[in-house]
Amino acid sequence: MKVRELLIEDRDDVLEMLKACGSFTEEEISVALEVLDEGLAGGLQGDYPLFCVEIDGRVRGYVCLGKTPLTKSTWHLYWICVHPEAQGRGAGRALQSHAESFVRERGGERIVLETSGQQSYERTRLFYKSAGYKEVGRILDFYKPDDDCVIFCKELKRRA
Amino acid sequence: MKVRELLIEDRDDVLEMLKACGSFTEEEISVALEVLDEGLAGGLQGDYPLFCVEIDGRVRGYVCLGKTPLTKSTWHLYWICVHPEAQGRGAGRALQSHAESFVRERGGERIVLETSGQQSYERTRLFYKSAGYKEVGRILDFYKPDDDCVIFCKELKRRA
Repeated sequence: MKVRELLIEDRDDVLEMLKACGSFTEEEISVALEVLDEGLAGGLQGDYPLFCVEIDGRVRGYVCLGKTPLTKSTWHLYWICVHPEAQGRGAGRALQSHAESFVRERGGERIVLETSGQQSYERTRLFYKSAGYKEVGRILDFYKPDDDCVIFCKELKRRA
Repeated sequence: MKVRELLIEDRDDVLEMLKACGSFTEEEISVALEVLDEGLAGGLQGDYPLFCVEIDGRVRGYVCLGKTPLTKSTWHLYWICVHPEAQGRGAGRALQSHAESFVRERGGERIVLETSGQQSYERTRLFYKSAGYKEVGRILDFYKPDDDCVIFCKELKRRA
């Protein structure tokens, strides 16, 4: 398993992954692709740095992040997606950990992310909690009725 | 006092207002103008509807809002700005109330907004609280050290 920059030639793998996940609506996929294309155009110095995890020569997960506008040292993690066939093998963890190192290296001090409060996202929320993210807010019915937005934040401690 | 759509010919008044407020950094003004220009280009049907309040023939305040992507009926209030010379005369309230009616008419059920937790923003927070917004989250040091992000949400009750 190898984490590296996501490149333009990986775009088809990403599209397949987003569809295979089954948990994204068409609108979500379309927004994800919009941000993806902006991220691919800007590269690692742009507004949406992108990394992927490669397993057996195929891209099986990716993460999209970005510095939060109007903040001094806050970043957002916009998207982590892992192909269902590759889940449970640490790909998500590898992406999240790589994203955090990238943010730290650029002086970032915290990462904020939003996810769904639905039952089907419980594994996702546990994933973030076990990685040190704390719930700092909740907006009831945000996405749709009975689908809250849960806001998580992780403070990135300075390394000695 | 009259609330109406903000138009391209009001742009100079808006720029003057943003500068006169004294509370916005250069970066904030630049982001506000970016969103303003996108809003002006899209009009009331676009991603960032804009309204202004006119007092004695001059634009003295404006509001920028938008439907929140990937949600069914959630809107964001991105920006309310009132010229310091016009503050305390209900211009902010007129804008906020007009924005809420606009959102309601389009089937919006809640409005989310983010503001600063700094002492100097206490009047702003009280303004929103008195208008029925509730604090639903807080991200410590979000903007900069000791400058939290406070997230507010107002549920828009259906009118009988």
